[in-house]
Amino acid sequence: MSVQKPSIPKGTRDFGPAVVARRNYIFGIIRRTFEKFGYAPLETPTLENLSVLTGKYGDEGDQLLFKVLNSGDFLKDVTVEDLQNEDGKATRRVLPKVAEKGLRYDLTVPFARYVVMNRGTLTFPFKRYQIQPVWRADRPQRGRYREFYQCDADVVGTDSLLCEAEIVLMMSEVLNALGLTDYTIKINHRGVLRNIYQALGSEARETDLFVAIDKLDKIGRDGVTKELLERGFSAAAAEQLFGLLAVEGSFTNKLDKLRTAFGAAQVPTDAPDAYKGLQELGQVVDFLTSFGFEQFERLEFDPTLARGLSYYTGCIFEIKINNVNMGSVSGGGRYDNLTGAFGLPGVSGVGFSFGVDRLYDCLEELQLFPESAAATTRCLLTNFDAEGMRQLLPVLRELRAAGVPSEMYPESKKLAQQFKYADAKGIPYVLIQGPEERAAGQFKLKELRTGEEKTLTLAEVLATLA
Amino acid sequence: MSVQKPSIPKGTRDFGPAVVARRNYIFGIIRRTFEKFGYAPLETPTLENLSVLTGKYGDEGDQLLFKVLNSGDFLKDVTVEDLQNEDGKATRRVLPKVAEKGLRYDLTVPFARYVVMNRGTLTFPFKRYQIQPVWRADRPQRGRYREFYQCDADVVGTDSLLCEAEIVLMMSEVLNALGLTDYTIKINHRGVLRNIYQALGSEARETDLFVAIDKLDKIGRDGVTKELLERGFSAAAAEQLFGLLAVEGSFTNKLDKLRTAFGAAQVPTDAPDAYKGLQELGQVVDFLTSFGFEQFERLEFDPTLARGLSYYTGCIFEIKINNVNMGSVSGGGRYDNLTGAFGLPGVSGVGFSFGVDRLYDCLEELQLFPESAAATTRCLLTNFDAEGMRQLLPVLRELRAAGVPSEMYPESKKLAQQFKYADAKGIPYVLIQGPEERAAGQFKLKELRTGEEKTLTLAEVLATLA
Repeated sequence: MSVQKPSIPKGTRDFGPAVVARRNYIFGIIRRTFEKFGYAPLETPTLENLSVLTGKYGDEGDQLLFKVLNSGDFLKDVTVEDLQNEDGKATRRVLPKVAEKGLRYDLTVPFARYVVMNRGTLTFPFKRYQIQPVWRADRPQRGRYREFYQCDADVVGTDSLLCEAEIVLMMSEVLNALGLTDYTIKINHRGVLRNIYQALGSEARETDLFVAIDKLDKIGRDGVTKELLERGFSAAAAEQLFGLLAVEGSFTNKLDKLRTAFGAAQVPTDAPDAYKGLQELGQVVDFLTSFGFEQFERLEFDPTLARGLSYYTGCIFEIKINNVNMGSVSGGGRYDNLTGAFGLPGVSGVGFSFGVDRLYDCLEELQLFPESAAATTRCLLTNFDAEGMRQLLPVLRELRAAGVPSEMYPESKKLAQQFKYADAKGIPYVLIQGPEERAAGQFKLKELRTGEEKTLTLAEVLATLA
Repeated sequence: MSVQKPSIPKGTRDFGPAVVARRNYIFGIIRRTFEKFGYAPLETPTLENLSVLTGKYGDEGDQLLFKVLNSGDFLKDVTVEDLQNEDGKATRRVLPKVAEKGLRYDLTVPFARYVVMNRGTLTFPFKRYQIQPVWRADRPQRGRYREFYQCDADVVGTDSLLCEAEIVLMMSEVLNALGLTDYTIKINHRGVLRNIYQALGSEARETDLFVAIDKLDKIGRDGVTKELLERGFSAAAAEQLFGLLAVEGSFTNKLDKLRTAFGAAQVPTDAPDAYKGLQELGQVVDFLTSFGFEQFERLEFDPTLARGLSYYTGCIFEIKINNVNMGSVSGGGRYDNLTGAFGLPGVSGVGFSFGVDRLYDCLEELQLFPESAAATTRCLLTNFDAEGMRQLLPVLRELRAAGVPSEMYPESKKLAQQFKYADAKGIPYVLIQGPEERAAGQFKLKELRTGEEKTLTLAEVLATLA
């Protein structure tokens, strides 16, 4: 074996003890919230068949899938002709011959696959949450990783807007529990976007409108106008658009104003789903009111919110943390055809997802991680000598039996080195029993943060630490 | 998008809600035990560079590594000549050109890599645990998966046998907490195996002896004898071997008897590490005695235990569950050169690992999963009609605020269907408020298992469920 300087792949990370503890703190809050709302855990394999993954994320997504080489003689079906590159398609031709499996790209497609494969035994509505890593062969950059966790909760098999209302409740519960108090939950509806398009009465394409609106945050009103004009909208239509998007007031005020505006613009009211967006958003607010939801000032109806509209068919959600400069930390919405690609049409669902890496960065920037999120040894027993060590082992056992994570320094090294170890590991207490204390049946307990040292009996030590 | 019947790759598994809850119950006990003993969590990436993985698991292991295709034009460095297969080495020649990364194969090599990469900032001894999946392109079969979890705890940077004693404590604590009471922790030492070889005084190879001994369980005394004779041991040596392996009595009795036998066989006592195995095993027992360890009847000194000896240099551990027909559920040992392949020699450590799939199967076979391991919604609120639903939402909120995982059936369907939902999901309680109870400000709470139904106030409902 040759000696090598080891490294990890670009875009991946090792998580040391302190970071894992903090990440688990976030995961724990999300998990408990999902479970409190009746969502049950699902885990799917890291490896999925490429036939399941391919074609679900668009062409760009297909490029970003990590593909796993077939085991054994992976070249056995590849011919020299396959490699001839004159048509520039060698890669596409060879790929299916050398790789049948890929890494999970998100949690939604595996969820859809699971629902279809188990539709005979699942009870609907099926509420599941899933907290697992996903992989994307994206160009790594600050804050963008090739391996990262997603935390999804979805319910499929019901149209009830109770689910949408509960998503708002779960979002606000998680943020409150994390101590993130300055947030905005933005909500919109695909139907509102459609009504806006109808109100403009333009011959240009609906999708072009939404793609432009979605960029408003980034390129501003002038940029959006320019893009709309390029794509066949009239200057008047653009003008009218910004009038619609600028509605102000409370959540229900804005709903009412848009209803009036749509009426004035002669958006037809006789279609079966006419004004469904406004109506459903109103119902979500009604449910939240019945729940006694107290944070309406954090809930904003944002008619510009689109979030990749090819996917969503009903409500659309997104969370911004206002006092940190960062993209959305959570998003989601309702979709009508989760499982269609797998031959099971008509399965409606609604779901959302938290971005743990971004939540982590927010908590760190705002210094919101509690001390308890540094799960580690609570007490280090110092090691004086072989005999003292033996005598302290029953104490170590009692501490652990009392639920106090504890350890003894394994060797009789200098005390300074043992203290250094406790300090580096973030252990808050050190227990010392030198010959003197041993004779008196007592212990010195030192709190490293304050330097305070007390001489205590074992019962007192246990009472302090447990 | 063409419609397809989806499937998952051979050797992988979906874990539905009930199974995830039970697996998390096992993970939780292991995690809490590791933490109680001062082990801190580490997580490494799924993707590792193949340069880190290759050559660490033997030729067979290299074959079993899942390799990930380079992104983009993965064929760009492959030539038509590379594909010429006349020397049968095309695969080996092409592989490094198309794949630079692989999937984690175990938790030990990534741990070693982490220690080397972070040696400047880590404080030693470094105690870490790691609970993550690993992947092996093994032929899938009953009980053998291509993706499965390992739960490792290791401490590196100390020779103290306190670590070995604490491994026995952790093993027994985890098994006791799981309710697995009929187990045997087998322990041996590489030094004892060496002394046995020395006692035989044979010219044949040491490794051949160990490979043969390791199979005793499977092929029996006759099989081992046959193999030894084939490999150059004399019949007398084989006879003597079984005399040594047959020592009986308590742990320390066996140590004493072997010491006497080694002496009689003139195993040299003047080498620096002479009889070190027996001596260290004695020290581990001494530490356990000082700890007040009460389960010595479950700890067996087994001089036949070898466990892939190329790796271990000191104590060797293994756990058998006696009342289930299954291989070992845990194993480990001390090693001297964890990080040598990465250019950092002389890092000694000791560690062990639990096999979660096997523990799961044991608990299932012995029906040891507690009811609490079925984490799910505790109470379903039935949905009578739109108005009743609204009136129950504050109740739903109070239940959740009291920490009771609860949900309302999202639609006003037939009660029978709502009960069926609760039943299928394993929800123990159903809360009903029809018009009559509503008028009286009361609720019916039905326990599904017993069928018992009580009419209660909200306070009483909360008291029952919280």
